[in-house]
Amino acid sequence: MSDTIGYRPQASAQVRGARAGAAQDIGSDTVDPALWTCPVPLVDGSTVVMGHGGGGAMTAELVEHLFLPAFRGGSGEGAGELADAAVLEVGGCRLAFTTDSFVVRPLFFPGGSIGDLAVNGTVNDLAMVGARPLCLSTAFILEEGTDLMELGRVADALGAAARAAGVPLVTGDTKVVDAGHGDGIYVNTTGLGLVAQGADYRPGRARPGDVVLVSGAVGAHGMAVLSCREGLEFDADVHSDTRPLHALVAVMGRTGADIHTLRDPTRGGLAATLNEIARDASVGISIRERDVPVADAVADACNILGLDPFAIANEGVLVALVAAEGADRVLAAMRAHPDGREAAAIGVVSAENPGVVTARTGLGGSRVVDLPTGTELPRIC
Amino acid sequence: MSDTIGYRPQASAQVRGARAGAAQDIGSDTVDPALWTCPVPLVDGSTVVMGHGGGGAMTAELVEHLFLPAFRGGSGEGAGELADAAVLEVGGCRLAFTTDSFVVRPLFFPGGSIGDLAVNGTVNDLAMVGARPLCLSTAFILEEGTDLMELGRVADALGAAARAAGVPLVTGDTKVVDAGHGDGIYVNTTGLGLVAQGADYRPGRARPGDVVLVSGAVGAHGMAVLSCREGLEFDADVHSDTRPLHALVAVMGRTGADIHTLRDPTRGGLAATLNEIARDASVGISIRERDVPVADAVADACNILGLDPFAIANEGVLVALVAAEGADRVLAAMRAHPDGREAAAIGVVSAENPGVVTARTGLGGSRVVDLPTGTELPRIC
Repeated sequence: MSDTIGYRPQASAQVRGARAGAAQDIGSDTVDPALWTCPVPLVDGSTVVMGHGGGGAMTAELVEHLFLPAFRGGSGEGAGELADAAVLEVGGCRLAFTTDSFVVRPLFFPGGSIGDLAVNGTVNDLAMVGARPLCLSTAFILEEGTDLMELGRVADALGAAARAAGVPLVTGDTKVVDAGHGDGIYVNTTGLGLVAQGADYRPGRARPGDVVLVSGAVGAHGMAVLSCREGLEFDADVHSDTRPLHALVAVMGRTGADIHTLRDPTRGGLAATLNEIARDASVGISIRERDVPVADAVADACNILGLDPFAIANEGVLVALVAAEGADRVLAAMRAHPDGREAAAIGVVSAENPGVVTARTGLGGSRVVDLPTGTELPRIC
Repeated sequence: MSDTIGYRPQASAQVRGARAGAAQDIGSDTVDPALWTCPVPLVDGSTVVMGHGGGGAMTAELVEHLFLPAFRGGSGEGAGELADAAVLEVGGCRLAFTTDSFVVRPLFFPGGSIGDLAVNGTVNDLAMVGARPLCLSTAFILEEGTDLMELGRVADALGAAARAAGVPLVTGDTKVVDAGHGDGIYVNTTGLGLVAQGADYRPGRARPGDVVLVSGAVGAHGMAVLSCREGLEFDADVHSDTRPLHALVAVMGRTGADIHTLRDPTRGGLAATLNEIARDASVGISIRERDVPVADAVADACNILGLDPFAIANEGVLVALVAAEGADRVLAAMRAHPDGREAAAIGVVSAENPGVVTARTGLGGSRVVDLPTGTELPRIC
């Protein structure tokens, strides 16, 4: 998921010789929200708001200004590059390691469940760094009073998704919190994967001239969850796209084309993902709105609610930035795979306007696609 | 922590060739609490109760009857052995992998904080399978309205503990839930470690004749948390024992003695850990109450509240079962290390009464030490 942050400058060096050094006294006065650049309500409130979990600018600020300084102990290291998973060298292997907690409501929604998300979300974080998933851990925080039948259904869904993805669940944990201090079931999954030889799909590798590919229609997951929440009822055709993407990535890799960057546009949607890539690679990205696949039912629902489908979460779509000469080959391979049938080329990377994403509208104009600040749809995963 | 369950029959085989197979339809009717053997309130209520998170018999039932069947898809595999971490073979390395969520209240208590527990608890799960910790992930579930300063203090504590243990935090995640659906801050850490050559400390390896060693005084962590909860005030000398134990385990391993089993007696305390070992190895364990180190302040507090210090959680103590001929050497090595100064030999393993733990009382009698059912102290870690 795009919200998983790799705190990983010199990650492999740290792993080879774990950092020594006594605990440092990092006082809480190192956290001063008044100095942050994020818009209200962050600065005004000095408390956590829903937007901090949205995977957009507010999440990034929390990570950069609060977590990273604390975890690095004021060592002055840079914020590093944001990635879906940390990559570590252990005994000659390159391992990928990634974690995600899942707090989606409702637990079951059209096309999936928290169990599907917990497996596929973490599997996809591994896939986006070019890793074959090896195994998952699963940790439950249960609220006292939760129906055991419902817990059973969630566990069944999680097990079924793991078998479908071919990734074993190998270790776990269960905690229970008092009634009123949870919400039924929260799940964390953490994944371990083996990075394929030569794979390096970091956002910073995008280059002017790259073609922007997307593996399927966007916006389905967020709208599916929304459709059964808040009393809204949409077209029955809106289903979550949750699926594991590692098989698709393997097929893309086998084309031999020069794939520079892979990301799955989860929280914050296509807009957040493209903005992060544009920033990390210092490139401009321009997409053509008409070429971005959006299911009619999703487009209709977004129109009614005034939501931008580019900012809606996906759980089974990837974005690939590929050197132009191999892009057609990769696109053909994606379309030939069951998980990429609706793949499309949606734009190009340029040296102009580094850090900025623009979209050519249906009317022939051009608009800036901003990084979403907080989240329009909270608790979507 | 003793509650981390290794779902790991044939774990390495699964990892070498991840299990294929489509999702199976495992109906929720596979969960029938009426058939479970656990005492009320589990059967009566059919809902999650605090005891399910206690690390005792109720947690084990939940894992065995609900999680394992769901995760294995009715494949008929046995429940497997419970372990602190899964061990996987990847590219010629033996990797340890373990997860824990932390929901302790209050967030800061005498001698430590949720940040210390989150690092040391997971580091110790790796250490108990003989692994050198390589890195940790950290995932936060934050409640809307949580003070950012408090979050900063927790992050600082987590970072300081990681530096003290020499283990880097390499990837993370942040989710936010609505006010009233969390409790400020929950943290999950998942750890990856490299298992030392030849190390195999599984509970099932305990053998008659083994000497039971404990690395320090028991009961401190649970009583420290309790001391600042529920309006109770104890002697100021009751501090949590939270500490990383991998350095101590390395020193013990270097004695060359035949260490059969290592465990850290966290939730459920010494009583739960010894019962699990007795069950897994089909041996009897008899301990001498007088030889088990318990700090005076902890013993006094337990007396006042009618609690058994053997059932109270520890966060910086390990239990080792060592072949008799090398036990003195291991004990001397432990006592020479700062983390094992109070180490003691507390009992022996026998072939009699397999699965049963007995304690010789101060009066010369003998009593059965039961596996705690739920938890006397909820949300202790």
